[in-house]
Amino acid sequence: MKVDGKHFRTIWVKEGNDSVIQIIDQRHLAHKFVIEDLTTVDEVAIAIKDMHVRGAGLIGATAGYGMQVAAMNAPKDSVEDFMTSVKADGAKLIATRPTAVNLEWAVNRQLEAAEAAENSVEAKLKVIRDTAKEIADEDAEFCRRIGEHGCKIIEEISKKKNGETVNILTHCNAGWLAFVDYGTATSPIYAAFDKGIKVHVWVDETRPRNQGARLTAWEMVGHGVPHSVIADNVGGHLMQHGLVDMVITGTDRTTYTGDVGNKIGTYLKALAAKDNNVPFYVALPSSTFDWKMQDGVKEIPIEQRDATEVKYIRGLHDGEIKEVLLTPEKSNAANYAFDVTPARLIKGLITERGICEASAEGVLGLYPEKHK
Amino acid sequence: MKVDGKHFRTIWVKEGNDSVIQIIDQRHLAHKFVIEDLTTVDEVAIAIKDMHVRGAGLIGATAGYGMQVAAMNAPKDSVEDFMTSVKADGAKLIATRPTAVNLEWAVNRQLEAAEAAENSVEAKLKVIRDTAKEIADEDAEFCRRIGEHGCKIIEEISKKKNGETVNILTHCNAGWLAFVDYGTATSPIYAAFDKGIKVHVWVDETRPRNQGARLTAWEMVGHGVPHSVIADNVGGHLMQHGLVDMVITGTDRTTYTGDVGNKIGTYLKALAAKDNNVPFYVALPSSTFDWKMQDGVKEIPIEQRDATEVKYIRGLHDGEIKEVLLTPEKSNAANYAFDVTPARLIKGLITERGICEASAEGVLGLYPEKHK
Repeated sequence: MKVDGKHFRTIWVKEGNDSVIQIIDQRHLAHKFVIEDLTTVDEVAIAIKDMHVRGAGLIGATAGYGMQVAAMNAPKDSVEDFMTSVKADGAKLIATRPTAVNLEWAVNRQLEAAEAAENSVEAKLKVIRDTAKEIADEDAEFCRRIGEHGCKIIEEISKKKNGETVNILTHCNAGWLAFVDYGTATSPIYAAFDKGIKVHVWVDETRPRNQGARLTAWEMVGHGVPHSVIADNVGGHLMQHGLVDMVITGTDRTTYTGDVGNKIGTYLKALAAKDNNVPFYVALPSSTFDWKMQDGVKEIPIEQRDATEVKYIRGLHDGEIKEVLLTPEKSNAANYAFDVTPARLIKGLITERGICEASAEGVLGLYPEKHK
Repeated sequence: MKVDGKHFRTIWVKEGNDSVIQIIDQRHLAHKFVIEDLTTVDEVAIAIKDMHVRGAGLIGATAGYGMQVAAMNAPKDSVEDFMTSVKADGAKLIATRPTAVNLEWAVNRQLEAAEAAENSVEAKLKVIRDTAKEIADEDAEFCRRIGEHGCKIIEEISKKKNGETVNILTHCNAGWLAFVDYGTATSPIYAAFDKGIKVHVWVDETRPRNQGARLTAWEMVGHGVPHSVIADNVGGHLMQHGLVDMVITGTDRTTYTGDVGNKIGTYLKALAAKDNNVPFYVALPSSTFDWKMQDGVKEIPIEQRDATEVKYIRGLHDGEIKEVLLTPEKSNAANYAFDVTPARLIKGLITERGICEASAEGVLGLYPEKHK
C-alpha cells in the first residue's frame, strides 16, 4: 500500500541485487520509517526473532526470502555442499519463533522445491528465488481477494446510507504491515477507499502493545484513509450510538467451527456488536483455519506474556523513542495476549474464496476438500 | 486508608493549625507521594481546577475545607465584611469546575450554616469549621457503610469457594482517592481484606487517563491488597475462564431506573459479565442518583475530551515524569470519557443504605422519600 504517495510492500528484493532483501523495520513505527537491508541469514533470523517483521503472512514471506539469502550465500562448488548449507540455514530460521506456523511452512516449501529441481546449483538457486517471489505474491494475492469480497459488504452499507460515510471499527493490526500487502481486516477498507466509497476507520489502540495506535494508524495515514484512534474502551459506546456500521478484525487462529482466536479484547467488541446489531466480520486467509479444533474457547491456547509489556510503554519524546513506567513499581500485572470470540457473535468470515457463516457448515461449504 | 502502614485521608486540617488544609496532590501518583499545604482560597481553587484533587466526594470535601480557609483569612472586624469576603470566595470556588455538582452543594451548605449561626464572626467561623469537618466525615461514613454492605457479598462468595481467593475486577478509580476515605467500589474490597477474607483485585488500567494503573493500583499497594493491573482488553477473557468472581465499579451518575453512567469501557465489562454469569455491582452514595432521568443511554450527556489524552501518555522515565507520543503525529483521535451501562446488565447497586436491584422499584424501595 502507499506510504506518502509511493507504493510499498513490507518486504522486497533490492533493485539490481538479488542477494539483498529489504524490509520495513516495524519496531520504529509509527514514529520512524526505517528500511533495513538483510544480506545474511543471521540478519534475517534477527529480523524475525526481534520482530523487525511480524504477522503470520509477513513471517512466512520473510522466511521464503530468507532462504533466497541462504541460497545466494551458500557454497556453489557442489550441489551437496550447497544443499547442506541451505538446509542448515533453514533450520536456523525455523528456530527463531517456534510457534509461527508459516515460518516452518515457508522453509519446507523452499526445501521441497529445491530438492525437486534439476540437480545443479544454478537450477536450485533459481527455483528458490522463484519460490520466494511466489510465496510473497500468493500472500498478497490472497489478501487482495479478501479485499475484493469484503469490499462488497462495505459497498452495500454505503448504498443503504445513501453514500454517507461508512464507519468501520478494527482492533489490533491485521493490516498490510502484517502481510506482504493489503492486509486482511484492512484489505476491504483499502479496496472501498480506492473505489471512492466514503469510509472512516475507528482504530482501537490495542493495549498493551498498541498495534492499532502504532501500526494500523500509521497505515491509514500513509494511504490517506480517514481514521480516529480510540482507547479500547470506547467501541461499546460508539456502537450504542450508531457510530459504527461494521467491525472487521483479523485472527491468529480460527477453528473450522468458526471460533476466532485474536488479539486480546476482540471478544469484548464482538459482545458490544451483538448487543447493538452491528455486523462483526473476521477476515482471514484459509491458512489460518485450524481444521481440527472444535471448541475455540476451550482449546485455543492463550499465550501469557511478560508483565513489563503492561507496566511500561514506549513512545516519542523530544524526537527519541522512550519507555515510561505507567503503574506503581510494586504492582503486579497480568498479560494475556489473545482471547477467543465464540462463533455465535460473528456475522461472517471473509476469506480469499468468499464470505461464509462462522460455522462448520459455512466454512466447509467454502472449503469442501477439508471435509473428512 | 493506609499508605505504607500509616492511615491517611485524602484531605485533612494540618495538626495544630486550623488555617492550613493538607491534601495528597494526586497529579504525581502513582510515582510520587506529595502532600500539599493549602493556605489561601486561591490555592484551594487551583487544587480543584488543576485536579490535584478529583472525584465527586473529594471535590465536595475540598470545597467544604476551602470555605474554612476562606473564613480563617476573612476580615474579622465586622460580621458584614466577614460574610462578604466568605461569599466572594465561595463564588470563586464554585467557578473552578462548573459541572461538579458536589462543589456548589458544599459551598452552599457552608453559606447556609454560616447565615443561620449566631450573629458574630466567632460563631460563624466556628460553624464553618464544624461544617467542613461534617462534610468530610459524612463522605467517609457513607463510603464506610457501602463497604459494610458490599463486604457481605464478598464474604458469601468466599464461603461458596471454601475460603479460596475471591477475584474482583474493577474499572477506573472509585477508590478512597476519589472520596475522603474508603472509596465506593473499593470500600467492600478493603472491608473484606481487613476482615481477613482472601481477595485479589484485577485492576483495569482504564485508558486513556489510566486512573486504574495510576490510582487504584497505588491504593492497593499502599493498603497491601493483592492485585494485578491488566489492559482494559483482558476482562472478557478472564470472565470466560472463571477468573473473575464479581465486578464492582463506581459511577458518575446513575438514573433512578438503574442505568449507570461511568468511565468509558464500563459497558464492555458489564456485557462480558452478563455473557459469563459474573455478578456486576455498582457502588455509590445516594448523592450520585439522578432522580429525574429515566433512560440513561439516551439522556446522560457524555463528555468528549481532548484528543491529546489519547495520543500522549505520561509515565516515569529515569525518575522523572515524562510524556510520550503513542500514535502518528498526523492521526486523528477521539476521546469519549464516559459510557452508559443499561440496568439490565447490572446485578445490584450498593448504597449507604444497603443493596438494591438496578431498577426504579429497587432504588425507590431503598429511598422511598424520593417517590413522587
